[in-house]
Amino acid sequence: MNTEAYEQSLRTLQIALVRWQMGAIKDGQKVVVIFEGRDTAGKDGVIKRITEHLSIRATRTVALPKPSDREQGQWYFQRYVRNLPTAGELVIFNRSWYNRAGVERVMGYASPREQADFLRDVPAFEQMLVESGVVLLKYWLDISREEQKERLAARMADPLKALKVSPLDHVATDKWDGYSAARDEMLARTHTKDAPWWCVQADHKKAARLNVMRHMLHHMAPKALAKGVDPVDRDVLFRFDPEATEEGRLAR
Amino acid sequence: MNTEAYEQSLRTLQIALVRWQMGAIKDGQKVVVIFEGRDTAGKDGVIKRITEHLSIRATRTVALPKPSDREQGQWYFQRYVRNLPTAGELVIFNRSWYNRAGVERVMGYASPREQADFLRDVPAFEQMLVESGVVLLKYWLDISREEQKERLAARMADPLKALKVSPLDHVATDKWDGYSAARDEMLARTHTKDAPWWCVQADHKKAARLNVMRHMLHHMAPKALAKGVDPVDRDVLFRFDPEATEEGRLAR
Amino acid sequence: MNTEAYEQSLRTLQIALVRWQMGAIKDGQKVVVIFEGRDTAGKDGVIKRITEHLSIRATRTVALPKPSDREQGQWYFQRYVRNLPTAGELVIFNRSWYNRAGVERVMGYASPREQADFLRDVPAFEQMLVESGVVLLKYWLDISREEQKERLAARMADPLKALKVSPLDHVATDKWDGYSAARDEMLARTHTKDAPWWCVQADHKKAARLNVMRHMLHHMAPKALAKGVDPVDRDVLFRFDPEATEEGRLAR
Amino acid sequence: MNTEAYEQSLRTLQIALVRWQMGAIKDGQKVVVIFEGRDTAGKDGVIKRITEHLSIRATRTVALPKPSDREQGQWYFQRYVRNLPTAGELVIFNRSWYNRAGVERVMGYASPREQADFLRDVPAFEQMLVESGVVLLKYWLDISREEQKERLAARMADPLKALKVSPLDHVATDKWDGYSAARDEMLARTHTKDAPWWCVQADHKKAARLNVMRHMLHHMAPKALAKGVDPVDRDVLFRFDPEATEEGRLAR
Repeated sequence: MNTEAYEQSLRTLQIALVRWQMGAIKDGQKVVVIFEGRDTAGKDGVIKRITEHLSIRATRTVALPKPSDREQGQWYFQRYVRNLPTAGELVIFNRSWYNRAGVERVMGYASPREQADFLRDVPAFEQMLVESGVVLLKYWLDISREEQKERLAARMADPLKALKVSPLDHVATDKWDGYSAARDEMLARTHTKDAPWWCVQADHKKAARLNVMRHMLHHMAPKALAKGVDPVDRDVLFRFDPEATEEGRLAR
Repeated sequence: MNTEAYEQSLRTLQIALVRWQMGAIKDGQKVVVIFEGRDTAGKDGVIKRITEHLSIRATRTVALPKPSDREQGQWYFQRYVRNLPTAGELVIFNRSWYNRAGVERVMGYASPREQADFLRDVPAFEQMLVESGVVLLKYWLDISREEQKERLAARMADPLKALKVSPLDHVATDKWDGYSAARDEMLARTHTKDAPWWCVQADHKKAARLNVMRHMLHHMAPKALAKGVDPVDRDVLFRFDPEATEEGRLAR
Repeated sequence: MNTEAYEQSLRTLQIALVRWQMGAIKDGQKVVVIFEGRDTAGKDGVIKRITEHLSIRATRTVALPKPSDREQGQWYFQRYVRNLPTAGELVIFNRSWYNRAGVERVMGYASPREQADFLRDVPAFEQMLVESGVVLLKYWLDISREEQKERLAARMADPLKALKVSPLDHVATDKWDGYSAARDEMLARTHTKDAPWWCVQADHKKAARLNVMRHMLHHMAPKALAKGVDPVDRDVLFRFDPEATEEGRLAR
Repeated sequence: MNTEAYEQSLRTLQIALVRWQMGAIKDGQKVVVIFEGRDTAGKDGVIKRITEHLSIRATRTVALPKPSDREQGQWYFQRYVRNLPTAGELVIFNRSWYNRAGVERVMGYASPREQADFLRDVPAFEQMLVESGVVLLKYWLDISREEQKERLAARMADPLKALKVSPLDHVATDKWDGYSAARDEMLARTHTKDAPWWCVQADHKKAARLNVMRHMLHHMAPKALAKGVDPVDRDVLFRFDPEATEEGRLAR
């Protein structure tokens, strides 16, 4: 996809998002969008494009720091619940409660018991949110092993990205298979009718961004507005199904 | 029960609660106690005796005012979740999320849809809390129609209780049957293995208080401590079962 | 003062407080009451009598646990500010921001720089609250060395008070003079026209409680109501003045 | 300034900000940056460039929605205090407590009494923050009447900016002089040694952005890092002084 076509599509989608939000504020719609994915999968980038022209007072991007000692003693979901939207708000989680099933599992920060509790609780927790009127959209940005290696290397070399470089970066590649297994179980266990996972082939950033935005609009905008939005490319963004991994649609 | 015997028993139980809390703080135990019941059922009174000698920094009694406009737009449980305990804390809810199934239903403040959502969500919500390690104790203080009438009248006549008199007081009696029906459905729908309801005959305040305290201790204290606590009088405090109403164990 | 007279006076004052709060809720009055004093000075006891018949939804007693690691990195006043009242609320601090000038100084928990900053900041901070319409009442409960010794000994012997016994108790007596010096400086430096300190001779609990309640009513209730309240006994409760210590009105 | 040179300078400054933040997180430095200015002055744009490559977990941009009814009853500063940084955090306020002296004054949303209280309280409030170790930087982005007119017109024509168009836009121009007077008084009254105002000629966006970033670095970065940053252009960004308006350095 050439840059000009991308810019044009992006602009069109951002205008649609602006139109959507004008109505959402009026109607009191509540939206929670979750982005999960391995390191360098492109979470920051897609969020930046989504929020670029939205209302700063009706949009919150939530990227929680590590829990305080007080929070560590609380119910796991408590600090996330505090950040849920009120009427008319869009809240985007850049990593979310799913940390427990991802990095905390791979790194051994959560006990097997805590991980099991988490996977059992998530469906009920999310069902409550959805049934209370929250539009909940969960995206798994999936990148290949080669792409991740390249991005990590590029990051290392780019002084602008020094804050994204982490002592855990090598773990992302060293424990690639561990992360794959964690992802497979997480998706399989927490993919529900009310709160399905949407998988995004994220090796191509531009296509990933445009398709996430299209998909969001088709799911949260009123029909009249959604009708004008291009359909989602199902090779790029598809509904999770348990066989996705075997079929090679998710990176191994 | 004469006053002296009551004072003696109360003192013994309060000492046991103090002992329990010394260990609970050390062990990081989290406890949530919910008191529900009709107006004048004795919620304030029992809470006062429980908390009287406990640590003011490890004990919180939560009696939320009506939701702000911002809270009204949020997930119903959100403002309650913010008040859940961290490790080592005891949180007592004087009325709780069950408002939705009680006063909000009888007064028509919540829509039928909201009530239905609530009753469906509660078991999953409470299960999550319990499985996360919270000790959750739910007490329904049950008073008879005659006793309530007397207490409301006494309250009207007592200038110390002027703040408890509400323009809705007559509703408590006018809609007695509505409240009974709300209670029956609430108990039946939200009584679960993980989070059972404990019903308390509250016409006799002293017996009600002592038995609640005994029951709490038997459920949250370590065996060595609980062993020294008198057994609960099952005529005063009993596990809810769906036939309780028919058997006349709950007031009609 | 005999018990019966005390009970009668207490009841009269509690009724007046109830009347006051009925108006305060309607008028949206905001009140902050601070109780400071050495260990065993009677803070819990006076707060219990004040709040006993007040509205549980319009009254909050704040006794903060030690700060979380996250709070420790914040502006010192931040966690107290979060607990300030909204319109119609009474908030009582059982120990308050003055911790920094008391226990934190005597125990060396706060650096000299932090203590100095605190003493310099308090007058401006409190002036802002007062000028924003908050009624701010600050009470120093003062007990004598002998009385404290007795109360600490009694506490040790009473299993009901086990949670109040602290490994720091002996410090209260060992560092009696350090606490006296801390008190003197704290009172002198933070006694302002907008937010004066009221000193209470607290060796006699009953007189202390009654006079605090009278004083509160004279300061926060409308004239018509205050007129019916007995005058404050100025031997028991008096406005701080810097010579109070020399005159022997504060314990040494 | 041509685009290429701008991009190059921007990149250099963003790299310096990244370096600064790596140290700031380690050292627990707390920074609050406030951006104020008329509509279209470029607040969002400069914030976007500052935060673009910073850590999402250590950086928060705060743009508060209108206060809830509960917040409206609280101390004016309370909801801002809740958002102050903990150790290692950078908090950027996109509009701030200064609303009271700007839009709330011009539109008559705050009473004269509330405005007067605010202007009197701010210096003490900010002094406390600064003395507690917060680095506080306050920028007034100043645009000319003509530039604002053009930007408002451009905004009206751009569907991407529809969420920024407000029914109050015409007020910005209709009440131009009222806003000028509000600005003059606000700057004069709240410009202090501890918390000075920095005025930015914002008609030229690129120069404004680069100079703000340079200025931030000179004020919050360690010497070794600041030394490598170009000096601030004092024609673009200058310390407020009360004669600035008369000299024509601020727009009329």
